[in-house]
Amino acid sequence: MDIKEIAKIIGFEYSGDSFEISGINTLKDALPNELSFVTNPKYFKDMEDSKAGAIIVSQAISLSVPSGSIALIVDEPYLMMAILSKSFSSPIEDVDAPKAIIGEGTKLSQKAEIANGAMIGKNCTIMSGVYIGSGCVIGDNTILYPNVVVYRDCKIGSDCIIHANTTIGSDGFGFATNKRGEHTKIYQNGNVVIEDDVEIGSSTTIDRAVFKTTLIKKGVRIDNLVQVGHNCEIGEYAVLVSQTGIAGSSKLGRNVVMGGQSATSGHLEVGAFNTFAARSGITKSIKENGGTYAGFPLMDHKMWLKLQAKLARLIK
Amino acid sequence: MDIKEIAKIIGFEYSGDSFEISGINTLKDALPNELSFVTNPKYFKDMEDSKAGAIIVSQAISLSVPSGSIALIVDEPYLMMAILSKSFSSPIEDVDAPKAIIGEGTKLSQKAEIANGAMIGKNCTIMSGVYIGSGCVIGDNTILYPNVVVYRDCKIGSDCIIHANTTIGSDGFGFATNKRGEHTKIYQNGNVVIEDDVEIGSSTTIDRAVFKTTLIKKGVRIDNLVQVGHNCEIGEYAVLVSQTGIAGSSKLGRNVVMGGQSATSGHLEVGAFNTFAARSGITKSIKENGGTYAGFPLMDHKMWLKLQAKLARLIK
Amino acid sequence: MDIKEIAKIIGFEYSGDSFEISGINTLKDALPNELSFVTNPKYFKDMEDSKAGAIIVSQAISLSVPSGSIALIVDEPYLMMAILSKSFSSPIEDVDAPKAIIGEGTKLSQKAEIANGAMIGKNCTIMSGVYIGSGCVIGDNTILYPNVVVYRDCKIGSDCIIHANTTIGSDGFGFATNKRGEHTKIYQNGNVVIEDDVEIGSSTTIDRAVFKTTLIKKGVRIDNLVQVGHNCEIGEYAVLVSQTGIAGSSKLGRNVVMGGQSATSGHLEVGAFNTFAARSGITKSIKENGGTYAGFPLMDHKMWLKLQAKLARLIK
Repeated sequence: MDIKEIAKIIGFEYSGDSFEISGINTLKDALPNELSFVTNPKYFKDMEDSKAGAIIVSQAISLSVPSGSIALIVDEPYLMMAILSKSFSSPIEDVDAPKAIIGEGTKLSQKAEIANGAMIGKNCTIMSGVYIGSGCVIGDNTILYPNVVVYRDCKIGSDCIIHANTTIGSDGFGFATNKRGEHTKIYQNGNVVIEDDVEIGSSTTIDRAVFKTTLIKKGVRIDNLVQVGHNCEIGEYAVLVSQTGIAGSSKLGRNVVMGGQSATSGHLEVGAFNTFAARSGITKSIKENGGTYAGFPLMDHKMWLKLQAKLARLIK
Repeated sequence: MDIKEIAKIIGFEYSGDSFEISGINTLKDALPNELSFVTNPKYFKDMEDSKAGAIIVSQAISLSVPSGSIALIVDEPYLMMAILSKSFSSPIEDVDAPKAIIGEGTKLSQKAEIANGAMIGKNCTIMSGVYIGSGCVIGDNTILYPNVVVYRDCKIGSDCIIHANTTIGSDGFGFATNKRGEHTKIYQNGNVVIEDDVEIGSSTTIDRAVFKTTLIKKGVRIDNLVQVGHNCEIGEYAVLVSQTGIAGSSKLGRNVVMGGQSATSGHLEVGAFNTFAARSGITKSIKENGGTYAGFPLMDHKMWLKLQAKLARLIK
Repeated sequence: MDIKEIAKIIGFEYSGDSFEISGINTLKDALPNELSFVTNPKYFKDMEDSKAGAIIVSQAISLSVPSGSIALIVDEPYLMMAILSKSFSSPIEDVDAPKAIIGEGTKLSQKAEIANGAMIGKNCTIMSGVYIGSGCVIGDNTILYPNVVVYRDCKIGSDCIIHANTTIGSDGFGFATNKRGEHTKIYQNGNVVIEDDVEIGSSTTIDRAVFKTTLIKKGVRIDNLVQVGHNCEIGEYAVLVSQTGIAGSSKLGRNVVMGGQSATSGHLEVGAFNTFAARSGITKSIKENGGTYAGFPLMDHKMWLKLQAKLARLIK
């Protein structure tokens, strides 16, 4: 999409040269042919180092846009990014892509639907009612139980098991809200990547990234009715027990164990081998490894037991 | 159904004239050709003002039934209503209704099933495994991702997006329990109405009303794995983050934001522009607008922070 | 499977006679032709009374294996049991079983899939996108709404209603973790049995047992988005409100009521007619019947109200 067209959509008068913008990305990751945006002063540093071809900014901070990037100055940068996100989204299916490739030995139910442009490995089992979108790649020996849905462009490794009615790659929960309280969808143009030897329960939902990838690493075990938000990263062999929710952009280290109905806030990082009791609520990053935590607000598990003892005494 | 037949089913001796009853409704909403019931003294006032053609009541309060209504006096009014609810329920599908009407430009997967009597607007995308029941009406440009299920008689507006494996209009959780602890289903004869420009995530469940309508108003954003109970009303542009539960008959004002894993009790009202932190539990109506709350029991968000600080000091 | 082959898989030198082992089971339930295992000293008593043909144990406690059982001594008994569990698992479908039997008067959607070896009773309604696995048995008059998935060998009684996108019998969450933190799946070779007159909401998940049966007894009512773990037993007429989670091997007595978003830990028992408020978290068995509880940690409901009043005073 030409930068001139982009400027026009967001109502910015642009008099420079034409050049092609191929997508939207974060300040950190954007390439010279990509567009980025700043909405929060805390990303100031990222802006100064950004290689983005153009950056959508408010007037107030437009002078800090690096010299290699074009400043697209608007009143509501986040809203403008949301409006533009639609222009960079893919169609739901690539109807013109070549017919899906199905590996040798794979059992494919006639009641499954595999969109054009998908690739499925060898010896998989793809059961009734499964949907696999365009551009998806599935490894070998993987089992998708009935009614699993995999949205376009997602990747699932080998030796994975995904149980019934689970959804991989539906849109992350993203929108910009204008001054009247109306929402504009931010199209979720990233994907989900699930590495090898991952098992995921029933009716679990793993959202596609807004940009780039929601990543489920090797050997992870996810139970039923779990929510993994967009752009999360779940470390190797991590365990998410039933009804847990991981909010957007959070990263769990390897072998982290989240008890049932536990949760994290978004945009935080948790070190490896930490264990969280059922109902834990993590709201801040944890750099340490190997701890045991409980409660909401979260505390060391022993502290939590102590607190409960104190509270029990309160009512005597 | 003739009033005489109704009286017979519930074991009440009725010697008046025959007349036709077309359905069951609340005391407030019942019309002269409808039946209602009283189970709770707090609905006394509603009974006095009711226009219902007949009211199922216990002996104790039968004298307060207004003169325009016939009192059907029974031992267990709620249980009798439950038993009768089946008589007023519709078949799961109207097989004899005319074939569904599909608007121009709508892409309909051959692996979707559209029941007779449904109407789908223009330029919609109805993907693999979707089920749309009899009497459903869907607007224009709406996308139903794979395996979305819409039960009969529900309405979805234009420009809506409903993600995979979500269920619209399944039965609300309603039953009457007799003295031996056995349950009798209350048939959920209402529907769900979703207005325009609503986006709903994956594996979310929105129950149909017992009578009338569960209403999701314009511009609402609902995340994955959210439960909306029967007869709820979700105000314009409200936001329900993942794993939230809204119990039956509760009403949220416009732009209410429910954080992840938050919940409300049933039968309450929340004013506009109120924001609830993750895990909030709302158990009483909030008339004020624009507040910020947290905790369970719920309190002002600042109070909650203060309480947590106090508790932290307790264990030092 | 021959005991010699089993010994070889787990690296134990076995010089006794050949005999056939037909499955894995708990110490308590294993028969002379079954294999069992000990991983926790608290099951010592069960081992002494076990009738298992062979028991996988660590060196330390191998002398306590009863004389009628063969001790298979290994370093990591739980991990070895996990490795063996695959050998005793059934294929996903019995393709060679006879074609499914469908009872008279049953309405079967052409878009449902019924695997070979299934049996469906009379006057059922099996809607679009439903999957019913091999060996399943469904009673009379039962309704499966669109996209319900029933894994192989599960049984559903008569007069049941299961709402859309619900999964019955997917694998329980079981794995053994080795010293490097890597997981090995424990195949879930049991099933789910749902008795008569049970209603289950949308997007609910009921896991199959690791051995034997996850049991939902007569008249139970389960709401939307509920999780029932493997080997649970839900008593007659119990009520599980939306987003509740029952962890593995827990037993609820008859007419237990679990409020919305409540939960239990695993391996506990709850007496009959106990009621738990929304968000209750049960972590210990409750032998008493007929109580009312709230909170996490759980306490008597009146105590919980008292505690909240004390806490409210703390911040004044």
